[in-house]
Amino acid sequence: MEAFLKKKPGPGVERGAVDRPTIGGTDVLVEVKGAAICGTDVHIYEWDEWAANRIKPPLIVGHEMSGKVVEVGQNVDHISVGEMVSAETHIVDQTCLQCLTGREHVCQNMTILGVDRDGVFAEYVSIPAHNAWKNDPDLDPVVGAIQEPLGNAVQTLLPINNVEDIAGRNVAVVGMGPIGLMAVAVAKELGADKVFATAGGLNKTRIELAKSMGADQVFSAREEGREAIVKAIFDATDGNGVDVAVEMSGHPDGLVTAFEVLTKGGRVSLLGVFPKAFEVDLNRLMIFKAATIYGISGRLMYRTWFQVRGLLRRPTLRKKVSQVVTHRVPIRDLEDGYELILSKQAAKVGLLPKW
Amino acid sequence: MEAFLKKKPGPGVERGAVDRPTIGGTDVLVEVKGAAICGTDVHIYEWDEWAANRIKPPLIVGHEMSGKVVEVGQNVDHISVGEMVSAETHIVDQTCLQCLTGREHVCQNMTILGVDRDGVFAEYVSIPAHNAWKNDPDLDPVVGAIQEPLGNAVQTLLPINNVEDIAGRNVAVVGMGPIGLMAVAVAKELGADKVFATAGGLNKTRIELAKSMGADQVFSAREEGREAIVKAIFDATDGNGVDVAVEMSGHPDGLVTAFEVLTKGGRVSLLGVFPKAFEVDLNRLMIFKAATIYGISGRLMYRTWFQVRGLLRRPTLRKKVSQVVTHRVPIRDLEDGYELILSKQAAKVGLLPKW
Amino acid sequence: MEAFLKKKPGPGVERGAVDRPTIGGTDVLVEVKGAAICGTDVHIYEWDEWAANRIKPPLIVGHEMSGKVVEVGQNVDHISVGEMVSAETHIVDQTCLQCLTGREHVCQNMTILGVDRDGVFAEYVSIPAHNAWKNDPDLDPVVGAIQEPLGNAVQTLLPINNVEDIAGRNVAVVGMGPIGLMAVAVAKELGADKVFATAGGLNKTRIELAKSMGADQVFSAREEGREAIVKAIFDATDGNGVDVAVEMSGHPDGLVTAFEVLTKGGRVSLLGVFPKAFEVDLNRLMIFKAATIYGISGRLMYRTWFQVRGLLRRPTLRKKVSQVVTHRVPIRDLEDGYELILSKQAAKVGLLPKW
Amino acid sequence: MEAFLKKKPGPGVERGAVDRPTIGGTDVLVEVKGAAICGTDVHIYEWDEWAANRIKPPLIVGHEMSGKVVEVGQNVDHISVGEMVSAETHIVDQTCLQCLTGREHVCQNMTILGVDRDGVFAEYVSIPAHNAWKNDPDLDPVVGAIQEPLGNAVQTLLPINNVEDIAGRNVAVVGMGPIGLMAVAVAKELGADKVFATAGGLNKTRIELAKSMGADQVFSAREEGREAIVKAIFDATDGNGVDVAVEMSGHPDGLVTAFEVLTKGGRVSLLGVFPKAFEVDLNRLMIFKAATIYGISGRLMYRTWFQVRGLLRRPTLRKKVSQVVTHRVPIRDLEDGYELILSKQAAKVGLLPKW
Repeated sequence: MEAFLKKKPGPGVERGAVDRPTIGGTDVLVEVKGAAICGTDVHIYEWDEWAANRIKPPLIVGHEMSGKVVEVGQNVDHISVGEMVSAETHIVDQTCLQCLTGREHVCQNMTILGVDRDGVFAEYVSIPAHNAWKNDPDLDPVVGAIQEPLGNAVQTLLPINNVEDIAGRNVAVVGMGPIGLMAVAVAKELGADKVFATAGGLNKTRIELAKSMGADQVFSAREEGREAIVKAIFDATDGNGVDVAVEMSGHPDGLVTAFEVLTKGGRVSLLGVFPKAFEVDLNRLMIFKAATIYGISGRLMYRTWFQVRGLLRRPTLRKKVSQVVTHRVPIRDLEDGYELILSKQAAKVGLLPKW
Repeated sequence: MEAFLKKKPGPGVERGAVDRPTIGGTDVLVEVKGAAICGTDVHIYEWDEWAANRIKPPLIVGHEMSGKVVEVGQNVDHISVGEMVSAETHIVDQTCLQCLTGREHVCQNMTILGVDRDGVFAEYVSIPAHNAWKNDPDLDPVVGAIQEPLGNAVQTLLPINNVEDIAGRNVAVVGMGPIGLMAVAVAKELGADKVFATAGGLNKTRIELAKSMGADQVFSAREEGREAIVKAIFDATDGNGVDVAVEMSGHPDGLVTAFEVLTKGGRVSLLGVFPKAFEVDLNRLMIFKAATIYGISGRLMYRTWFQVRGLLRRPTLRKKVSQVVTHRVPIRDLEDGYELILSKQAAKVGLLPKW
Repeated sequence: MEAFLKKKPGPGVERGAVDRPTIGGTDVLVEVKGAAICGTDVHIYEWDEWAANRIKPPLIVGHEMSGKVVEVGQNVDHISVGEMVSAETHIVDQTCLQCLTGREHVCQNMTILGVDRDGVFAEYVSIPAHNAWKNDPDLDPVVGAIQEPLGNAVQTLLPINNVEDIAGRNVAVVGMGPIGLMAVAVAKELGADKVFATAGGLNKTRIELAKSMGADQVFSAREEGREAIVKAIFDATDGNGVDVAVEMSGHPDGLVTAFEVLTKGGRVSLLGVFPKAFEVDLNRLMIFKAATIYGISGRLMYRTWFQVRGLLRRPTLRKKVSQVVTHRVPIRDLEDGYELILSKQAAKVGLLPKW
Repeated sequence: MEAFLKKKPGPGVERGAVDRPTIGGTDVLVEVKGAAICGTDVHIYEWDEWAANRIKPPLIVGHEMSGKVVEVGQNVDHISVGEMVSAETHIVDQTCLQCLTGREHVCQNMTILGVDRDGVFAEYVSIPAHNAWKNDPDLDPVVGAIQEPLGNAVQTLLPINNVEDIAGRNVAVVGMGPIGLMAVAVAKELGADKVFATAGGLNKTRIELAKSMGADQVFSAREEGREAIVKAIFDATDGNGVDVAVEMSGHPDGLVTAFEVLTKGGRVSLLGVFPKAFEVDLNRLMIFKAATIYGISGRLMYRTWFQVRGLLRRPTLRKKVSQVVTHRVPIRDLEDGYELILSKQAAKVGLLPKW
């Protein structure tokens, strides 16, 4: 079959013909019908320090996908050939403390598709049946492929099983990458009062996209400055600040913004990964503010997926999520996809199975 | 001033001229600008057994209201003359265990406007400043007056501070009185996937109203039978049943429906008041189903009110809530209002300050 | 191997020689080292209506056990021969909504050891590796065998992941069977202020046992009457009632007691199974009290088990749990064990592997 | 009356005769019967940068106290002359978002006894009745005086209304000041499995004190090094790390320790105040660990106080809390008390009303 691989250490990817994967007794084989490029894929493409340390070539890259089941392992009886599925790409041991207490998403022995084992930028991929999430048959395969980042958005807003809901509350989303955009849409879908969107620097297209997600106000920190943004948000919230802030920028200034706009006793979720350690005033930002802070990694398996399924059945959200996919390219032009992201022309790039 | 009173034990109300109330140091005097009739008011009007035991005439009746502050007590500094407020009608001691642990709504020493002390079907009413909830200035006074039942709907769906949210989940609302109708609208506003509405018997108008609230399916138990309704709901939820059910009918059959349509481990809120004790199969409905059940009384003071304010700022919900007020009558025709409800012509009846 | 079986419908059990079980690839074979008799076993022994409808002979009975692993399936790599384990006797599908959202204990397709498939009153038993819970090597095998009912006690007190803790709170335990006794001990171990124990009728031995579990006051409803008990509990709790009540009696009067002694806004867990449906005043007990109610079925897999392991490492609790096993009999005298329970001489009967 | 005051900016305190305070209609006047020195008091005594910016002399210092009510305001009807009370020293407006949603402890307009208004190192103090917490009459006045820091310990372990309990879980307490010591005792009292105590440097006496609080292992970072401590804690917890860590040291190294010993998906509470901003690796410590983090400020008013009352009724905890008061000095020797703390001889210093 055809696939895109990291054949050896270094930047770039190469197309190649490889053996179609075989499956074990508890696996399913999926024919990829839609895929998408994640920020992680870009790190692997660029071969940054993290990638150089983690990736062991040769490796088929990519992990966001949906497709049709074409074969099921002999011990799998809840999935049938012909069903449409997406992959939860975190493969877990189901035996550690975390897996046995409803926290598979932080399994102590996790491997990841397209990072630790062959991924999905290929014609076929083998995944454990436990990781195959059934999609509604009519779901657009590209939307099906981005349920993982959508799940991140949902889990960032609703990080644990019983968390203060966001009905009628004010929310700030810091960082307007694809997950930030989806978080704006999800917050509005869940009954938020005002949703504020802010990021380091935003071009006109991205500002429009944030507004079409439902943001009440969109701020560009480079132009307006953090102080003015914080003031504007307090002014718009009866002087209280927001009840919930989600950090999706991965920038130190974004972290400070998330906490500065927060009302005392509010909550912040941290999803953005920071380039390195930096100086943080924990007293002012976290302690004196009596904030509750959630580190977010992955999505709840499978609470979040059920919620994503339900939310995608709502036409309003399904349409917005689809809009986040600003570009759809044939997978044979995968490198164009990477470049659209690197040049900041695209929010999310969908990949069509055209080889 | 003019007011409607229960002057002596027995059915009915009478209009009368009474002294304008005076206020204490921690009270505010409010000029009533909008009001509405609650089910409790109808019980008092009809003088049923509960009313006969509880009400001590003479008493100005009514409790759902909004109005303008015309005078503030000397120790009140967070409310000003001219502001628009609604009343939280549960007056609490702020010193008992419940009040001191975030549960004022179940204060051990509660008195209720229009039940235990003079109410709001009058030109003016005195309330403790602690019970005066500031409204957005542009809020329709009749919508302002029904924030208490809207708050019931919100609290029934989100009963405690940290409860499983309803994002992407399936919800059943049992009982299509005004609060049931609003619960349908609120559930949809909070991101529910499917919302099922069911009631004992529903005329065509009420079915249409339930649909316009956003119900995906509306059932009338009298016509369809409980068994068929339960089957239909399981069929529409991938065979799982609903994640959340709210009982607002006050009928034994509604209780059974709420639990029968529930998925194992789901949650049910009970708001409807039942006419009397009845036989309940706790094993089947609650225990083997591992259900979580919330008895609902009032609204969280003031968590729910903040959420109601935020939700009413969303045009979609504000419009739906307004639709639940099917009739608006001058308060001088108050008795017509009662009759509209008793004849089931009206969902909610708003009262305009025309004496 | 030797085993006790229900060979055909009807009361009693019979000893017999049967084939030693074989195991599948994901199972383990356990040599039983300790067992215990559960109330369910007594129902099966007596062949009541429930048993007659559910049990399909021939069937090896019994489900509470601990033992040594003597063989592991080829796909099992986290359990080794020689390790000591207990069985979680609820065997789940790991694919339904409940299993995929942290609620395996209410799996839609559950089978139970000793009820739906061969149980543990035998020399060996085969169980899925997923159901084998590793014990500390020094744990008394009989105590190891009663971790399921101990888990029930823990889950009844702490029913969900994020529930109001019981630190410094007042607790009522209704019903003084083995789980009720353990619930008293656990509540005290978790920092409860006062723990009240009550049951329908209690002989002197059982009252002493409840006191040795740590109960501050023990009531016998038959002698004292519900009204006096409720009064005594309010008197002892500054007039507030208890914060948490757990119903483990399965008697209608126990249900009423649990809610009557509850403070407004408190919580009740229901574990006791009632003989049949009965009249319940939901308004007074649940709704006006704004109670939160948890139906309890099984134990959280495996959150509760981890907690049980941790709690059993505390010498205070381990000793108390051991005391609940009032009798230890060789399994060859199993029928004596049933009779000790039926005659109310025993709280919990442990079984030693002496054939 | 006699009192200790900060008469003018600068280090030290001075004794002086001042007018006995008068009370308003909602206040009570309390005759101080026991008091204690808090870390905040030491900052004010030493006149550090924070103190110089915040304190406006002249001011009676001190805030931890208990005493007898000698006069009640005319509008106070739930407290009587002669009752024993302690002060919650955070005086709140009861009207802001936080106060109206169960979070008075983070009121937007808070003033603090002994910091923003006259404190308790005096013969009498006037406090709002809302801030007077009734003590059991037999409670040692010095123990009564340290319920605020004990409340901090409780709130750090149980930070919000519905938080994962600590029954059977492993806990690390970082920092062995008085609150750290009490946190060890409280964690054990609430059913923790293992409790690990660690601090930067610990003398022999303090190590013994930590052990007598119930710590299973006590570590001194200066001697053992962080890496060895982390390894020891993982070894002692089946390789999982602790479920809950509480940071009470206010040292950057303590922060890192708290997160490094944490199991993935665990929770950390931050109470210690850090001397300044410092470099934090948020990715590694918080995000990839999927930690939940609580900034702690004050105590829940009054949920935590009720729990403290209940816990102090348990003889085991009452005795341990009493042991944390290593020295009791007549208040006339207040300066000796400060020096006992500054020289690290004392854990907690109690003050007796001997002038």
